Amino acid sequence: MTETRFDALCIGNAICDVFGHVEEDFLQQESLVKGSMRLIDTDEAVRLFDKMGQTVRISGGSAGNTAAGIASLGGKPAYFGKIAEDELGDSYYHDMNGTGVYFNTPRLRDSKPTARSMILITPDGERTMNTYLGACTEFGPGDVDESVVAASAVTYMEGYLWDPEEAKKAFLKAAEIAHQNGRKVALTLSDSFCVDRYRSEFLSLMSDKVVDLLFANEHELKALYQTGDIETAIAAAKETDALTALTLGAEGAMAISRNETVKVAAQTVDNVVDLTGAGDLFASGFLFGLARDYKLADAAELGCVCAANVIGHVGARPERPLKNVATQSGFEV
Amino acid sequence: MTETRFDALCIGNAICDVFGHVEEDFLQQESLVKGSMRLIDTDEAVRLFDKMGQTVRISGGSAGNTAAGIASLGGKPAYFGKIAEDELGDSYYHDMNGTGVYFNTPRLRDSKPTARSMILITPDGERTMNTYLGACTEFGPGDVDESVVAASAVTYMEGYLWDPEEAKKAFLKAAEIAHQNGRKVALTLSDSFCVDRYRSEFLSLMSDKVVDLLFANEHELKALYQTGDIETAIAAAKETDALTALTLGAEGAMAISRNETVKVAAQTVDNVVDLTGAGDLFASGFLFGLARDYKLADAAELGCVCAANVIGHVGARPERPLKNVATQSGFEV
Repeated sequence: MTETRFDALCIGNAICDVFGHVEEDFLQQESLVKGSMRLIDTDEAVRLFDKMGQTVRISGGSAGNTAAGIASLGGKPAYFGKIAEDELGDSYYHDMNGTGVYFNTPRLRDSKPTARSMILITPDGERTMNTYLGACTEFGPGDVDESVVAASAVTYMEGYLWDPEEAKKAFLKAAEIAHQNGRKVALTLSDSFCVDRYRSEFLSLMSDKVVDLLFANEHELKALYQTGDIETAIAAAKETDALTALTLGAEGAMAISRNETVKVAAQTVDNVVDLTGAGDLFASGFLFGLARDYKLADAAELGCVCAANVIGHVGARPERPLKNVATQSGFEV
Repeated sequence: MTETRFDALCIGNAICDVFGHVEEDFLQQESLVKGSMRLIDTDEAVRLFDKMGQTVRISGGSAGNTAAGIASLGGKPAYFGKIAEDELGDSYYHDMNGTGVYFNTPRLRDSKPTARSMILITPDGERTMNTYLGACTEFGPGDVDESVVAASAVTYMEGYLWDPEEAKKAFLKAAEIAHQNGRKVALTLSDSFCVDRYRSEFLSLMSDKVVDLLFANEHELKALYQTGDIETAIAAAKETDALTALTLGAEGAMAISRNETVKVAAQTVDNVVDLTGAGDLFASGFLFGLARDYKLADAAELGCVCAANVIGHVGARPERPLKNVATQSGFEV
């Protein structure tokens, strides 16, 4: 087996987040479903951006956030994602490498710009995402560096990769290489609307044992198993061969498998500013924990610590080193 | 007299802020003076950026922040500043116009990029700025739109405008037009190092009555009058023909003139995250108050309300409408 160089390889749509605060009625005027992510074209991206007030720009992308979180914990992550040779791409590249993520996907020249997502934050901290995929649509199997996959303890991928056509092929190629090298493959369901778009494919990934580890929140797991009852969804998750890591917001998180199910409480957060990245950073802590052979409950608890940290400020990337945050919570990282 | 279309015209270096959190020893390793702003060239900008970890990008620039704050209060500000035709410039243009600032300075093509400042935030919330001026060095007298100056109740300018050579000429031209039209001229001292660079010129602006209204914090006023004692500096300010608005951090603020001196307390802030913009947003509230014929003490208090709001999050621009914040504090804006 190849030497393990990376705690996790994260693969996803490389997106720059553009945050703006809006009131509740803005979502109604724009007919947007709170908490959803929708894909928009250039015209809509321009139109909506013009209607936003003051904005803040931070590198994002679900799997990118997870990779940054693992680096912030002191772990060794790698990342695959497609950015362009433009200013947003420069920022994205910098933020990844500056925090210690191995990120070397060839950049796109003279084609589509780096992807951006306009994230509307309502007063309750919920976020509604409007994503222009740009350069991400050019990510494909050719961008999957086999040696990195082989050297990563787990390859963690977004459900969102099902949106750009070629990215799906890259997902399957990476999963195959990972398993050929005795590595694990993880899928995050991304959001419940993403599950609605690709439910049967995601269920096949589970039954075909392409995916060993599933990340979901309550809405996503209920959507996957088409039930309104979370207990029914948990029972369904227990029947699969995969380990399911389930986040429950203020209720904490669970790790569910045939043999063992654990539940941990959420961390207390005084001032929830922006829920963006809570799930992504939970995955950082959980994946880091698994890579370091933590018990399931401890890995889930570290996930909750990371998630709690990120929702106290705007943006889905850690501001202060998570290594310090985790140490203060009693973890030896 | 021309009809008043703008509560204030703000003129300054149009800069995109790039924020990153660093530990105290980072400043020592880089031989940086905490709380200062220094100008850097392209090589140094690239070198320092590479050493920063995760970053956040928000439109900034001292006078730009002040203009955005006035708009956020529901006022009518205008802004002059030089940006390029690039992504950072697009963001800057959007943020200004999206929040209601009249901003129409011709953009620079095929030349220097939009300016950026790398702002290092230490755990105490202090910020140390490293500014690459880029397109700002091309701002000059030709960018001063006479009709806008004539229609603005006050023209408010940064001391930082003394750094790019042509910007200084633009400052003096704008001041002349303002006075020809019976308008007021305000100067903010920007930072104590800026005062050290241009002390005699700033003092001449006061004695020559080019400046009617001076904004300073404690360090800047002491630097201007070359004293270590704030009471001595206040006494000196009282002897000038200008009105001096003095911010005192946690001690609040004062308005000082020959005839009247008032002091107001600071607002309580539970969680100071980043002091960037406190002075800029104080100026927003104070200028808005003066334009609306508030009493001096009320204008100073509105300034403190705006300053308190901005230091609770990263970045020098309001996240939520200051109009709502001011209303909650009992102001009718």
